[in-house]
Amino acid sequence: MSFLERFQKYKQVIDKELELFLASAVKRYKQSINADVYQEIRDYVMRGGKRLRALALFMAYKALGGQNQDVARQLSICVELLHNSTLVHDDIIDRDDKRRNAPAFHIKFQEFYKQIDDQNEVKVRRFGESVAILAGNILYELGLEVIYHLQTPDEVKSKLMEIYASTYRKVNEGQLLDLAFEDRFDIAEKEYYEMVQLKTGALFEASLLLGVTLAQGSEEQLDTFVSFGIPAFTAFQIQDDVLGTFGTDKWGKNIESDLREGKRTLLVIKTLEKLGDADREFFISTIGNANATSEELERVRNLMKNCGALGYATATAKELITRAKQQLTIEPSLKKEGLEFFEAFADFLISRTY
Amino acid sequence: MSFLERFQKYKQVIDKELELFLASAVKRYKQSINADVYQEIRDYVMRGGKRLRALALFMAYKALGGQNQDVARQLSICVELLHNSTLVHDDIIDRDDKRRNAPAFHIKFQEFYKQIDDQNEVKVRRFGESVAILAGNILYELGLEVIYHLQTPDEVKSKLMEIYASTYRKVNEGQLLDLAFEDRFDIAEKEYYEMVQLKTGALFEASLLLGVTLAQGSEEQLDTFVSFGIPAFTAFQIQDDVLGTFGTDKWGKNIESDLREGKRTLLVIKTLEKLGDADREFFISTIGNANATSEELERVRNLMKNCGALGYATATAKELITRAKQQLTIEPSLKKEGLEFFEAFADFLISRTY
Repeated sequence: MSFLERFQKYKQVIDKELELFLASAVKRYKQSINADVYQEIRDYVMRGGKRLRALALFMAYKALGGQNQDVARQLSICVELLHNSTLVHDDIIDRDDKRRNAPAFHIKFQEFYKQIDDQNEVKVRRFGESVAILAGNILYELGLEVIYHLQTPDEVKSKLMEIYASTYRKVNEGQLLDLAFEDRFDIAEKEYYEMVQLKTGALFEASLLLGVTLAQGSEEQLDTFVSFGIPAFTAFQIQDDVLGTFGTDKWGKNIESDLREGKRTLLVIKTLEKLGDADREFFISTIGNANATSEELERVRNLMKNCGALGYATATAKELITRAKQQLTIEPSLKKEGLEFFEAFADFLISRTY
Repeated sequence: MSFLERFQKYKQVIDKELELFLASAVKRYKQSINADVYQEIRDYVMRGGKRLRALALFMAYKALGGQNQDVARQLSICVELLHNSTLVHDDIIDRDDKRRNAPAFHIKFQEFYKQIDDQNEVKVRRFGESVAILAGNILYELGLEVIYHLQTPDEVKSKLMEIYASTYRKVNEGQLLDLAFEDRFDIAEKEYYEMVQLKTGALFEASLLLGVTLAQGSEEQLDTFVSFGIPAFTAFQIQDDVLGTFGTDKWGKNIESDLREGKRTLLVIKTLEKLGDADREFFISTIGNANATSEELERVRNLMKNCGALGYATATAKELITRAKQQLTIEPSLKKEGLEFFEAFADFLISRTY
């Protein structure tokens, strides 16, 4: 099976598994706001997503010869639940109104509240954000439920929980770093990598480690996947940033919002390093300016291209992927199918256009 | 040892344990915003609190003959961490500026941000709330860390995690119900109890269940503690509501904020049931009015007193405590010391004035 075939096939499998799991969560409440929230949790998660994290978990398990695919599939949805939990909180923090071509979670419940009282603007905002904070918490907990309901020895279960929990801490620490970056124009490339490894890398890495742990893999095998994951998922984030600035908004991603929020991407950091005084002044006054015009943002993009930052970012991502793939080849215990999958997976992380 | 002696002594023990645990969390980061956040997490948790949940856990363990007090003490801080996690999020949701005589978590980081830029009011608010959302998440995760680092068999550990995790879901569901109550004037007493059992009761109950589980207690013993906990902690919440409206603000609790927020306490629900049309109209227009004067709030308190709602609430709390204590006496396996402790504990829940 080619990588893309597997990717598409497994997306359907995981969607079905998520659907099943969330349907039972929805049944918990017949009425009250909790019924509305669980329904929206379901709808939100089922809007889509590439399910790359779940796929990584499942394939890491298989690559080490794991035989119980049912359990691996069941476990694999926990990383998608954690991921969605962080998206719900992220959109409050970043003031993003849209997610996957539909309203963000907090916006959904602002709309909900407007049916009760649309006069009180502060209350509308507060209600939407409050529900989203609590729903994000619940989404995280649902991932823990996946683990503790799993049919697997308690000793494995404890380790899975430990990985899942510590990952959540790291993701939150990464979000804090990202938040603190917003007002700085002197971020070193090293700091950017630290942030990305926590905010994005930790969960991808955890997906691999959960798969390895479920397969009761060795310390060496865990190390291999960490050495693969760190460069691979840093590259993923660099590509994500490139798409967020130079992509199309076909996939529900507004390619102006990262710039208007002043998100400190590798593109931004490198451009700041390279620009002369005049351009730099314009650049600084435009990124993070919520009212910047599309023309100004186009000029920002041109600066990024012309100073070499765009080229640097894509070259760096490519180099990281090469390094990641090398790590896999030195692990003798990997099944051939697994090796080929993760090589193609790594290539996909930077070749994808969505 | 009398209940109050034990209560005071154990508060010191648990404070020391928390201090130790949080000091190691603080050491994780030397600089960056994460260093500031962990420092504030430590300071926030160490501001105080009665540590009743930790005490309940520890004593449930002892009441069933548990011998390893070190492990019970270590475990007992997890419920305080979860509790503090919900307080951090709660204060954002309720727009409370103060917690235990000091600024709420999000207010602390608003002040922090003002040193960077005090001109942009929206950004200041957003930064403070964003940090508090993420710090609340981290506080929850720290409680999970307590569990997975515990020296206890994996099979016990799995159960502890399950209790801890499902409790978090319930607390969040309770907060959602509470939030949805804010605009309603027709809440049935039954709905109030459902909300309280999730929002407050679940964590207290979990404290007992964690203690019982660590002691590897039986299903019957778990049931006993649930039957004790549900009425006891409902009474706790009723007393908390009474103190929030009729107490003094000696303990850092503003006795006007519950009324100005329009919190649906048993007092409010019962008063709405009993008032005649004229008073009801005044009452409805005053509770939940952020700009109500102190005179108006005093009139609200008098209405609560005179219509019998205050008397009803305190009588109900008393009755619930009697019922809770009866549950304990029918459990033959409880050690005498444990029985006496939980009887005094139950009495304390409604006699406390802070």
